[in-house]
Amino acid sequence: MPIFQYTLLATDGHARRGVFSTPHGDIQMPAFAPVGTQATVKTLTPDEVRMVGADLILANTYHLYLRPGAERIARFGGLHRFMGWDGPILTDSGGFQVFSLSDLRQVDADGVTFKSHLDGSYHRFTPEKVMAIQAQLGADIIMAFDECPDPLDRAYNEEALARTHAWALRCAESQQRPEDQALFGIVQGGIFPDLRLESVAFLTNLDLPGYAIGGLAVGETKAQMYATLDIVTPALPADRPRYLMGVGAPDDILEAVARGVDLFDCVLPTRIARNGAIFTRHGRKNLRNARFADEQGPLEEGCTCYTCQRFSAGYVHHLIKAKEILGLRLTTLHNLHFLETLMREIREHIEAGDFLAFKEAFLSDYLQQSS
Amino acid sequence: MPIFQYTLLATDGHARRGVFSTPHGDIQMPAFAPVGTQATVKTLTPDEVRMVGADLILANTYHLYLRPGAERIARFGGLHRFMGWDGPILTDSGGFQVFSLSDLRQVDADGVTFKSHLDGSYHRFTPEKVMAIQAQLGADIIMAFDECPDPLDRAYNEEALARTHAWALRCAESQQRPEDQALFGIVQGGIFPDLRLESVAFLTNLDLPGYAIGGLAVGETKAQMYATLDIVTPALPADRPRYLMGVGAPDDILEAVARGVDLFDCVLPTRIARNGAIFTRHGRKNLRNARFADEQGPLEEGCTCYTCQRFSAGYVHHLIKAKEILGLRLTTLHNLHFLETLMREIREHIEAGDFLAFKEAFLSDYLQQSS
Repeated sequence: MPIFQYTLLATDGHARRGVFSTPHGDIQMPAFAPVGTQATVKTLTPDEVRMVGADLILANTYHLYLRPGAERIARFGGLHRFMGWDGPILTDSGGFQVFSLSDLRQVDADGVTFKSHLDGSYHRFTPEKVMAIQAQLGADIIMAFDECPDPLDRAYNEEALARTHAWALRCAESQQRPEDQALFGIVQGGIFPDLRLESVAFLTNLDLPGYAIGGLAVGETKAQMYATLDIVTPALPADRPRYLMGVGAPDDILEAVARGVDLFDCVLPTRIARNGAIFTRHGRKNLRNARFADEQGPLEEGCTCYTCQRFSAGYVHHLIKAKEILGLRLTTLHNLHFLETLMREIREHIEAGDFLAFKEAFLSDYLQQSS
Repeated sequence: MPIFQYTLLATDGHARRGVFSTPHGDIQMPAFAPVGTQATVKTLTPDEVRMVGADLILANTYHLYLRPGAERIARFGGLHRFMGWDGPILTDSGGFQVFSLSDLRQVDADGVTFKSHLDGSYHRFTPEKVMAIQAQLGADIIMAFDECPDPLDRAYNEEALARTHAWALRCAESQQRPEDQALFGIVQGGIFPDLRLESVAFLTNLDLPGYAIGGLAVGETKAQMYATLDIVTPALPADRPRYLMGVGAPDDILEAVARGVDLFDCVLPTRIARNGAIFTRHGRKNLRNARFADEQGPLEEGCTCYTCQRFSAGYVHHLIKAKEILGLRLTTLHNLHFLETLMREIREHIEAGDFLAFKEAFLSDYLQQSS
């Protein structure tokens, strides 16, 4: 299969079952990418990330640029060798982090000046700089530098969209390693259909190997998010993967797949795990709850993850209450296994042509209760 | 092999190569037991503890009694099933923790009243209570309730030793499961030869399946510790294992094995690991040091541990600096692998009859430098 080829294997309604090929292997889609912000999926080894069923890892350009530094990672032979993960990697552009994490930022037409959240030092990202950094990191999929405004603010979205488009063009023109890095453009435009369609038109004109939908799951309602997907995905080319950034709740994934999305990433499963919260087929539960203290069964009956095969919910409850690191590992493994299993089932049901029935049955159990 | 049998396989000077049999398998001695205070060797799964080469885990009675509670662990089928470790387990008596961790304590002839370090609640340990708790936990080796005084304070040692002996007798008389739990007595007496020999005489008269040497590595010099071992170990019966509590520095282990000690436990390898410090053949090093930032080789050249086989020192340095949990796991694995490998080599060299030469060569490298 040629590199960066999206092959559509089956459709079911708008839902798509496909494969995206990269220099470090295929990504079975729809796919969920665990987040490894600082070149590690928090608490896990690469072997464990593979074990839970993930094909692709996301790493954060902003964090790695600041520490340990992109040049250093390049000296180690790139991110794959540095972190010991030989599968596909995606790096984001740093845009979202610059706008959400850094203490101070100044945006102009050329780029963004910001203050490091680590030591207060000043830095500047431009499209060309971000392309150079991502070339040093060496991920298989890299993202165009974009601005991520409040999705409900029309005026700000109009202004930011002009920059995002100009920067996407400069990213495409300055990309250093097109032969082994796929540059994805990021569709912005908030909840405004005309802006979203304008963004799709501009970016697809650049003929990029994939497209992301950015600026969602950051303040709008779920209905607004789904309505935006209804506008955007049909306008995107069918032969390129569609990546909904920052979304990882099971119900959102199912609704987005139903609207033609192929790829997701989110800190949700790993972040809530470190707070003791776990995904189950009957909604999210929190293991810190005292009712788990004497539970001799697994976190979830029937679950095939390492945690549920080896330990009781009562033991993991104890570890979490006692602030033991093993507890964070075990809930993280469970949550990622849960999501990757969901993605596998989604793929199987699209192939079988009964995805919508699967989705309804899953949501009926999942949304009925949480504790 | 009958249960709780110590079989001497070889001697080399005073150093002993033996096997101690328990209901959950044999312990190859000299042995080092990683500490799993709260029913987990910090950061690791039981599979990983097995992988680094440990036969035996130590767990803390004081901590488990307070949380999650010994009765609860009994309902889970005991500590082995609760924590998912099917090898031998040793529980301490809680004596050391009551005297070092609890906020307030009152000692009388019958026992100790203390305040929980978790919630300030009051509790009372007596020899009978500690035997009942350790029966509920269900470890293979259990320890007599003792008092651990300042090893340099003669008057306090005399007074405490009388209690420790009276309590050891009450432990032996009230032990609930002698058929599947071996009760070890603890020799006390500080740095005072006459008190130590009095303690050995009293405890060996109880004819217990093993003897520990307590009250060392808590304030005396290394020379005083070694001199105390020179007095105590020759007086202990040759057909019972000798356990030096709380010692885990490689040089101390080698010196103690040379004096006839068979078993060790210590938080040192796991505790320093979580601070970024690692054992190497050339002494302790701290991975936080900036000189490791660009080190593409392993933590230690030639090391066969999982960490060194899979990751660079530079990557682990990055994880530690970035406060990533994976970093703590990887240094913990390395340090325990280092110590368990040392124990294996000690056993091999006692069998080969060249233990003293091995010890001198090891110490010559190990003590020459640290950073």
